Amino acid sequence: MRKIHVIGIGAGDPDQLTLQAVRALRSTDVFFILEKGEVKADLTGLRRDMLDAHVPEGTYRVVEARDPERDRSAGGAAYSPAVGDWRSARADIYERLITEELGEEQTGAFLVWGDPSLYDSTLGILEEVLERGAVAFDYDVVPGISSVSALVARHRTGLNRVARPVQITTGRRLAEGFPEGVDDVVVMLDAHQTFRQYAQEDLDIYWGAYIGTPDEILASGPIAEAAPRIERLRAEARERKGWIMDTYLLRRNPRG
Amino acid sequence: MRKIHVIGIGAGDPDQLTLQAVRALRSTDVFFILEKGEVKADLTGLRRDMLDAHVPEGTYRVVEARDPERDRSAGGAAYSPAVGDWRSARADIYERLITEELGEEQTGAFLVWGDPSLYDSTLGILEEVLERGAVAFDYDVVPGISSVSALVARHRTGLNRVARPVQITTGRRLAEGFPEGVDDVVVMLDAHQTFRQYAQEDLDIYWGAYIGTPDEILASGPIAEAAPRIERLRAEARERKGWIMDTYLLRRNPRG
Ligand SMILES: C[S@@+](CC[C@H](N)C(=O)[O-])C[C@H]1O[C@@H](n2cnc3c(N)ncnc32)[C@H](O)[C@@H]1O
Ligand SMILES: C[S@@+](CC[C@H](N)C(=O)[O-])C[C@H]1O[C@@H](n2cnc3c(N)ncnc32)[C@H](O)[C@@H]1O
Repeated sequence: MRKIHVIGIGAGDPDQLTLQAVRALRSTDVFFILEKGEVKADLTGLRRDMLDAHVPEGTYRVVEARDPERDRSAGGAAYSPAVGDWRSARADIYERLITEELGEEQTGAFLVWGDPSLYDSTLGILEEVLERGAVAFDYDVVPGISSVSALVARHRTGLNRVARPVQITTGRRLAEGFPEGVDDVVVMLDAHQTFRQYAQEDLDIYWGAYIGTPDEILASGPIAEAAPRIERLRAEARERKGWIMDTYLLRRNPRG
Repeated sequence: MRKIHVIGIGAGDPDQLTLQAVRALRSTDVFFILEKGEVKADLTGLRRDMLDAHVPEGTYRVVEARDPERDRSAGGAAYSPAVGDWRSARADIYERLITEELGEEQTGAFLVWGDPSLYDSTLGILEEVLERGAVAFDYDVVPGISSVSALVARHRTGLNRVARPVQITTGRRLAEGFPEGVDDVVVMLDAHQTFRQYAQEDLDIYWGAYIGTPDEILASGPIAEAAPRIERLRAEARERKGWIMDTYLLRRNPRG
């Protein structure tokens, strides 16, 4: 039976691979690397560097394919009603990769950015491929350090405050209002710096871009003061690199 | 200047250490291990095994101390108004450990269960020690795989659904009502199996105990069917081991 590892590789720092992930890399025959547009070529490079660093040459193959996923970090219509079509287009590709590139007794792997459990569609797509029934395989999931954990570690703060909840959400949702029932909110996939909408509130922000990579930028503080600073940093960085990946924690009533 | 690593060591599986954590372990002179009651002796054992496995003998010292923290997983009055006193009692101990056991040029480490960002007080206490000003040190945080990431990886599911938020909360909060604005909720620190309160709702539950350890137990399904099963498994395990550590994800309208 074909076997597949879905491996969380951390959100930028190659040292944030777990020992379990390294073991899984070493037991893999074929790596599937799905390109998500040219701006993310850097991220593909990081995956290849990880393989070079941890897996003996000649023991594996890399198969690259073009991922039809629209760049969700670019926001816009990414979560349109067409999301179903897009999903099934991806399932077509995954099904073909597994059927054609993986031998019946072989092990394949998908290297997932951060932790596979957060805003990643790999598991959903593999389930869809299995449901279709054209190819059978067994799969497991290796958790990874998410950009959320990496963000707060770099800021040396917690996600939640004592005995309180935390919500993880998207920029698009935050634009609809500050989530109810929580004072600590992590925002991902925000192309529009939605935090600006809350710049007059009693909030602290902990922001990070390219966390864990040599380009890492961090900024934090009371939002009224920090928001313009972050806007500037973000615009400069985006201009310089051509793309940006950022995440932030908003903490309401920080001193209350 | 004294240096301190706060190292997330994963939530049970020693292979869920990151390479960064291993590096931090190896650069540490003195490990502070805080015992949280006899039921957690197993967890102290796991920390010692990690050191044996990754750090050359004779390069480090271990200092154990009794942590005055009440076992919050036992629920009850853990978050009483006395939380301030308890915190300052802990700060006293940490301050003494750092002052007396760590040389001025040495590096100490606290090994934190899971990820230091989730329901862990180490960072707060270190900040309090710094504020008091009696001892100076620099510290950094090494993120770890949380029990939340480990839970969903074992169940091969995501934390959030496409473009939707997820909340992480406590059993105590869940007892006050299902959180607003979210359909995916992770519950930690629940000594009372609060999920039973929602057994008549359209929910799926993904539950795990001792995740990542040889005692791991997993169960999932529509809550009406799964809740009694989990209650039984949990009671048996608790009886057998004398303590339990469990976490679960509740997913509302799972097929909607
Ligand atoms: C499609 S989601 C994938 C998240 C990933 N599974 C994780 O665990 O971090 C992409 C979003 O993650 C966040 N992100 C991922 N890596 C990041 C990094 N190194 N620095 C800052 N944000 C990052 C950004 O919010 C980005 O829009
Ligand atoms: C004080 S909190 C610490 C959480 C930890 N920092 C983390 O990242 O997982 C303790 C709670 O974490 C959860 N937990 C920790 N380790 C676990 C494990 N191996 N299996 C199941 N639940 C676990 C339980 O809900 C427990 O009540």
